[in-house]
Amino acid sequence: MKITQNEILEMETRYRASLVNALSGFKSVVLISTISKDQKSNLAIFNSLFHLGANPALCGFIVRPDVSPRHTLKNILETKYFTINHINKDIYVNAHQTSARYDESVSEFEACNFTHQIIENQNVTYVKESNVKFLCEFQQKIDIEINGTIMVIGLIKEIILPENVIQQDGFIDLERAGTITCSGLDSYHETQKLQRLTYAKPNSWPQNVKS
Amino acid sequence: MKITQNEILEMETRYRASLVNALSGFKSVVLISTISKDQKSNLAIFNSLFHLGANPALCGFIVRPDVSPRHTLKNILETKYFTINHINKDIYVNAHQTSARYDESVSEFEACNFTHQIIENQNVTYVKESNVKFLCEFQQKIDIEINGTIMVIGLIKEIILPENVIQQDGFIDLERAGTITCSGLDSYHETQKLQRLTYAKPNSWPQNVKS
Repeated sequence: MKITQNEILEMETRYRASLVNALSGFKSVVLISTISKDQKSNLAIFNSLFHLGANPALCGFIVRPDVSPRHTLKNILETKYFTINHINKDIYVNAHQTSARYDESVSEFEACNFTHQIIENQNVTYVKESNVKFLCEFQQKIDIEINGTIMVIGLIKEIILPENVIQQDGFIDLERAGTITCSGLDSYHETQKLQRLTYAKPNSWPQNVKS
Repeated sequence: MKITQNEILEMETRYRASLVNALSGFKSVVLISTISKDQKSNLAIFNSLFHLGANPALCGFIVRPDVSPRHTLKNILETKYFTINHINKDIYVNAHQTSARYDESVSEFEACNFTHQIIENQNVTYVKESNVKFLCEFQQKIDIEINGTIMVIGLIKEIILPENVIQQDGFIDLERAGTITCSGLDSYHETQKLQRLTYAKPNSWPQNVKS
């Protein structure tokens, strides 16, 4: 079936949000942990994390000013460091719950039953229940004027992960690490590997990468 | 285990690319179809698509100037329209093959066995073999100076999808539509739904959304 631009414009707000969010496909879903300048911790779920570059190791995510995890941006601008924590099957319901509009005085760590994992010489913490996580230093904020969203760029300073998920070529077996994915605004999914494929060249066809 | 910033800096280039790419989690993987001003079609795989907003319906993706799908950006700037086509289990090997460095004279549609699906009043085409796809109009290019990457923003003008994958509240059941996900640079995965969760509120716990 075909949905036209006019039909998109005329949709009920939540219906459109649900539909358009799903169009971007299966997405990364992570918990971003921050701390304010007066040492209040915050934890928020994001589904817009993307890879920006490997050297330097950079990632980005989009903040929408009109949704609940707005403390995340304020804290990052105040204290410059944040952690990104992958979500697994055991914690995704708790992770989803961090999107509730808690008062600023409430830390989602406590409200949603997550445990702080201390980082040496840092005030910001990891989520102990997450298997793959990394520390970022704030680099840049880009205002996207077309709809008032904001892109935040972080430099990856440290990575914590189970030793047995890194393969010989640097590939991280996220499925083995238990990382899950999401779609739309609220749907969570495990994954099942099809295969890794070799680097594509014009005169041959991709092959399975044995691991 | 812990990987420090110095260890990241000292990694062999391809090892680091593989590792850092995986940190952003499971990602959307799509084919972007474009056409040049002299009517040459191009098809390229991207794993950095993200949702930017629902009203107006906007999406974004990152272009790296040093990798092969650079014709995509040139074509979008020339002709302003592009299509985003979800990848399913039947076409992911062909989709991966579009990342080979073909000459500009070669269309990846032909080289990788994809079929053009004509759009009324448009020169750009959909990928017929894709189940969920949408037409975008170029809105803005943002240069990310920190590493020379470029963010492209598109306005969603039309959506094509199977009728039976849209649920009552607008949610698209991508798993039912066969859309797959990827991790790292070259690993492809099917998904298995855990559950959809209700909108989170401070004084209750998320429940399963029946569908």
